[in-house]
Amino acid sequence: MSAAAEFGYRVQAECPHTGARRGVLDTPHGPVETPAFMPVGTRGTVKGVHPRELRELGSRMILGNTLHLHLRPGEETVARLGGLHRFMNWDGPVLTDSGGYQVFSMADIRAIDEDGVTFKSVVDGDRVRFTPERVVDIQLALAPDVMMAFDHCPSDPHDRGEVQAATERTHRWLERCVTRWRERGGLATGTALFGIAQGGAFEDLRAASAEAIVQHDLVGYAIGGVSVGEDRAAMRDAVSFASAHLPADKPRYLMGVGTPIDFFDAVERGIDLFDCVTPTRHGRNHQVFTSRGLINLRHRGWKDCADPLDPDCPAPHLDGFSMGVLRHLAKTNEMLGAQLATLHNLHYFHDLLRRIREAICAGSLPRLRDEVLSLADQRVDPPSGVQRS
Amino acid sequence: MSAAAEFGYRVQAECPHTGARRGVLDTPHGPVETPAFMPVGTRGTVKGVHPRELRELGSRMILGNTLHLHLRPGEETVARLGGLHRFMNWDGPVLTDSGGYQVFSMADIRAIDEDGVTFKSVVDGDRVRFTPERVVDIQLALAPDVMMAFDHCPSDPHDRGEVQAATERTHRWLERCVTRWRERGGLATGTALFGIAQGGAFEDLRAASAEAIVQHDLVGYAIGGVSVGEDRAAMRDAVSFASAHLPADKPRYLMGVGTPIDFFDAVERGIDLFDCVTPTRHGRNHQVFTSRGLINLRHRGWKDCADPLDPDCPAPHLDGFSMGVLRHLAKTNEMLGAQLATLHNLHYFHDLLRRIREAICAGSLPRLRDEVLSLADQRVDPPSGVQRS
Repeated sequence: MSAAAEFGYRVQAECPHTGARRGVLDTPHGPVETPAFMPVGTRGTVKGVHPRELRELGSRMILGNTLHLHLRPGEETVARLGGLHRFMNWDGPVLTDSGGYQVFSMADIRAIDEDGVTFKSVVDGDRVRFTPERVVDIQLALAPDVMMAFDHCPSDPHDRGEVQAATERTHRWLERCVTRWRERGGLATGTALFGIAQGGAFEDLRAASAEAIVQHDLVGYAIGGVSVGEDRAAMRDAVSFASAHLPADKPRYLMGVGTPIDFFDAVERGIDLFDCVTPTRHGRNHQVFTSRGLINLRHRGWKDCADPLDPDCPAPHLDGFSMGVLRHLAKTNEMLGAQLATLHNLHYFHDLLRRIREAICAGSLPRLRDEVLSLADQRVDPPSGVQRS
Repeated sequence: MSAAAEFGYRVQAECPHTGARRGVLDTPHGPVETPAFMPVGTRGTVKGVHPRELRELGSRMILGNTLHLHLRPGEETVARLGGLHRFMNWDGPVLTDSGGYQVFSMADIRAIDEDGVTFKSVVDGDRVRFTPERVVDIQLALAPDVMMAFDHCPSDPHDRGEVQAATERTHRWLERCVTRWRERGGLATGTALFGIAQGGAFEDLRAASAEAIVQHDLVGYAIGGVSVGEDRAAMRDAVSFASAHLPADKPRYLMGVGTPIDFFDAVERGIDLFDCVTPTRHGRNHQVFTSRGLINLRHRGWKDCADPLDPDCPAPHLDGFSMGVLRHLAKTNEMLGAQLATLHNLHYFHDLLRRIREAICAGSLPRLRDEVLSLADQRVDPPSGVQRS
């Protein structure tokens, strides 16, 4: 079987009530059941989580970040150490983010021009130059299953002038990414290239962007520039505008999203893949997503609480740990506290996506949405009875 | 079987060449094969290590610290949450350090008198008062298998006046600890009390201290005030002086020690139990103990090294991680780097103690000592060939 034949996406079931679909994305490192949540392993590690634990939690496809790995340890080192899968000690599928979002949202930019972007390295202050070709080359050295095109993410999705310019540049840069990737072997490299649609909050720009990237007949397409500070209605609209113009027989990846409500909003609009730092970053801050709602484990009301964290969604790694112990570990900044909260959040996210996949088949997605969202965004305070000190 | 009957120690084999012995310490939470190394879980967690991993590494008896747990979350909270075993999520034996060492070596002391010590809490600045009786009560609330007596650890083992006064006070305080512990039920509480011998670097004081504590006919005895900055010869002597006067049919615990060479030095002098923060603290600082010697994982020479860390002592948790990846995780301060180095060090320590136990039976302890120590204290630099950048 050629490398090209290893990539593919097929829809297995469609929701009778919404635009949601259940499917499978095939990659050289195995299939990914969709809709799926992909944990973020920015610098080659999902923070605080051992790869064995990721497997046990049900993670399948995980992310690495091109910008961060380019800065440290450098793609040549990752390549010498056997590529990103061996580097992350992960034999499942891996996707690399192009660094576009990081460069435009966080980097100290020195110059943006049609050719690319020059910015200052956060590691050593050196000038770094990213062009579409260079970003493809770096990702080929990292050797993930899926690489992302280098895009220009506009800072304000409601600024039509900025959005239009950035979106059109994103299309020209995608053209250059595709050309470089094809020159280097295309799918025969073992790495598929996904294009990214921009277009901000504007229906015509989102539609035009989706149609522009689809011309390249890639393995999959992503929607970028969503969840950058806009309100929920604008976010839903942006996803709808783009998704309607992406082909049904290709996976749709909504980048940098999200939370339980985001998953329902987007899955109903035909989204198949998600990534976000939410479960891991919130976990390190001792904010946990549970079946009862959001819990702040630092709250003193949990001090003497002998209950388990989430009996309705029990991560095996949390077995035997009471909320009082988790609160103690949080208050004393013990590593194990951050580890356990991260493990729980990832378990909750993966379990939620599993339930979403099952509900799509069962035709019960609207019911699951109501059931989950009636609680998911509530903040759970400890009962006054446990506030003994 | 009464709680008292659950405690016991028996020698299974003695080294034909040295004073080393192999034995078993029975506790209410199961047996501990000795000589054994006990990982330190100061605040109710061995830093960065999940209890499941501790089990996999071969940990049996683990430590908690009375002072730290008293300050946070407080022994009442630990008791409400089911006692220290449930708090640490550990069903094996647990020992609590009395806090004596911490109070005398690290606390901001306000007053030391015959009755006890007053010091400032590092958590909130409040005044805390520790007396022998209070330390017994706190430990009974924590409910470990073994509690330690509250001792006065002299700061300079060579200052005869200070050592003599602290040692004599330690004996009076042990008397009060024993009285309180017996009043509270003695062995029927489920917690055995170990006495601590002081005596600094002085043969007569060490002998007198060992003889004084043995009068109480306890389940086990510890040697304190060793490895507090003195040289190796003084350390060996202190252990010899004390050990010779401790009964052969009781376990001997050398507190706060050590490193591979310390284990050999002490085991040969009849020591059965050890605890130290070395493997965990060094691990968090990316200093690892290996079959080849000490390795600093931050060294840039490991950047592109695709070799495993220690093929002769492979921790299962390190499987698939190259030295280059461990170096990257160390340089980027990723939690996983500290976790993996800690797991490796604990594996190395437990494996070394296992080999020591086997060598005692086989009569090959001197050979094992030569084999291990010819390398254990060497610092391993990367071969120049791997220093590519």
